Amino acid sequence: MIKTDILIIGAGPTGLFTVFEAGLLKLKCHLIDALPQPGGQLAELYPKKPIYDIPGFPEVLAGDLVANLLEQGKQFEPGFTLGERAETLEKLDDGTFIVTTNKGTQHHAPVVAIAGGLGSFEPRKPILDNLAQYEENGVSYFVKNPEQYRDKKVVIAGGGDSALDWSIFLSDVASEVTLIHRRNEFRGALDSVEKVQELKHLGKINLITPAEVTGLRGTNALEALVINKEGEEFLLETDHFIPLFGLSPKLGPIGDWGLEIEKNAIKVDNTLDYQTNIPGVFAIGDVNTYANKLKLILCGFHEATLMCQTAYQIINPGKKYMLKYTTVSGVDGFDGTKKQAPKPVVQAIV
Amino acid sequence: MIKTDILIIGAGPTGLFTVFEAGLLKLKCHLIDALPQPGGQLAELYPKKPIYDIPGFPEVLAGDLVANLLEQGKQFEPGFTLGERAETLEKLDDGTFIVTTNKGTQHHAPVVAIAGGLGSFEPRKPILDNLAQYEENGVSYFVKNPEQYRDKKVVIAGGGDSALDWSIFLSDVASEVTLIHRRNEFRGALDSVEKVQELKHLGKINLITPAEVTGLRGTNALEALVINKEGEEFLLETDHFIPLFGLSPKLGPIGDWGLEIEKNAIKVDNTLDYQTNIPGVFAIGDVNTYANKLKLILCGFHEATLMCQTAYQIINPGKKYMLKYTTVSGVDGFDGTKKQAPKPVVQAIV
Repeated sequence: MIKTDILIIGAGPTGLFTVFEAGLLKLKCHLIDALPQPGGQLAELYPKKPIYDIPGFPEVLAGDLVANLLEQGKQFEPGFTLGERAETLEKLDDGTFIVTTNKGTQHHAPVVAIAGGLGSFEPRKPILDNLAQYEENGVSYFVKNPEQYRDKKVVIAGGGDSALDWSIFLSDVASEVTLIHRRNEFRGALDSVEKVQELKHLGKINLITPAEVTGLRGTNALEALVINKEGEEFLLETDHFIPLFGLSPKLGPIGDWGLEIEKNAIKVDNTLDYQTNIPGVFAIGDVNTYANKLKLILCGFHEATLMCQTAYQIINPGKKYMLKYTTVSGVDGFDGTKKQAPKPVVQAIV
Repeated sequence: MIKTDILIIGAGPTGLFTVFEAGLLKLKCHLIDALPQPGGQLAELYPKKPIYDIPGFPEVLAGDLVANLLEQGKQFEPGFTLGERAETLEKLDDGTFIVTTNKGTQHHAPVVAIAGGLGSFEPRKPILDNLAQYEENGVSYFVKNPEQYRDKKVVIAGGGDSALDWSIFLSDVASEVTLIHRRNEFRGALDSVEKVQELKHLGKINLITPAEVTGLRGTNALEALVINKEGEEFLLETDHFIPLFGLSPKLGPIGDWGLEIEKNAIKVDNTLDYQTNIPGVFAIGDVNTYANKLKLILCGFHEATLMCQTAYQIINPGKKYMLKYTTVSGVDGFDGTKKQAPKPVVQAIV
């Protein structure tokens, strides 16, 4: 059982910044996310794209913003349960909560902050017989740990940035990378398309287009794919098949937690601390809704900050918190680090 | 008469970010500030100090944050009335407003956003006979334009960072810089204290401590100061006297505009758009108050953003605005510039 002060569902920008604001209040955070890495859609969908409306950044790449937020919260030592989806919420008699993931990992905390964005990202799966049977034995929809493909045969399907970028990356790791797409044209960043073209010429990526995977073969684990290329079928031996057909966000199990749902988002009771109809459970960032709501990252930052104040009251009943400015008081990390503005000196000039 | 869409009182970080968010909605902004440069207290009081709680910045110098915010809003061509204090607010019959400064500059806009921080910064003045008489003729409390001191004799009084830093800066501009402080000890950044020490040894700063200015002399303009050094009085010829004894924020004339005031701040009617009891007048950032209010820069950013949406409705009644993401739609500057994420290509790999 993982124990923490604030259990954050969703490791996107709002969830990550919560770690920092909670840390200033000496509260510890643990984050659960269905994706294999922190950052939410910024990391998974558009890490190389610029964002222009983060205050103070005329332009910042989504992936860099995630890296900055991780760095900003690092001294408060957040815990992570990644690649698992928060499945159930149970309120105990003492008012605390247990959240269990789809893999059975249990988390216990007095405060739950749902920072789930548009929901957990579910992969679009190809329609193939016996697909489920291979899901733990050769078929995966995310690259969680590239090392698992070291010196293996890998087939990637898809025509977008993920398929291009992972083909490029794994061409240096796997013994054989095959990229299959139902068209000859790929849609992605120019440099990714050009790099795949180059690797194809070098024989480092095996390209099969226009083609589709129409069957899976293998006794216990995946051993081969049935490929249909312009009407002709053939078998291709492989250890792994990674269909990258995009992700679609789904509110998912959170929708069954007894929270008030409106337009696929969690309605919050007020805009003063973004608490939901379940006391102790908050909804912050894109996942919540209220009058005049804007689904912007900068609003999530504000919501997270106000939420932490009420979380502090729940965790430290009756204790008064005085707001301190980081410029004046510095930042005391849980890891023993201390960030602080240089102190002025008092010194005679003679 | 200056005309604009949103008239912003206060050019601190909240006011500056409003320019950007308003610009995304094609609304133009004009800012009024009592200080001679934009940035509010970040620029005036602690430009070299690090801030740790701006989301996405593990550490940022206050002055750099101001520069970034100016850069971020620049393509929306904000106007500025600097070094003037907003004095009166008049509501016209058509619901628009006229704001007049202490120097008589008039501004006309359908929406007023008060982003006044802790109020306008008023200098602490020395208690000297006839001080007021020299205020336009030799005595000033801010360095608005350093060039006005070119080849002149300047006396600075004070023992903190402002006095140290301006003495250093003007030692290269003025013909003679004298720094007077009532103690031998100065309180400031170590490198500033050391630099003044060095310039004193080089004869570029004339230091008189412990001493005080006790009188002002001059027929029409300032010509000399009476200095008391350890009980002995003498005259020192000078063209300019700049007492830098610190600034204290005062809500000031805004307090008489008919707004609901609570604890020296403007109470807003709601946290959905931060409108005040005067429709069309908003209060955002540190100047406002509501239940659970936190006086943090990041909260001002959120408040500014929500406020702009209602401002859009006031200025474009009945028109519907669809939120666009800058990563998807880019940013169209009023100056003809266009920022945009690189477009994906659709290209065959052969």
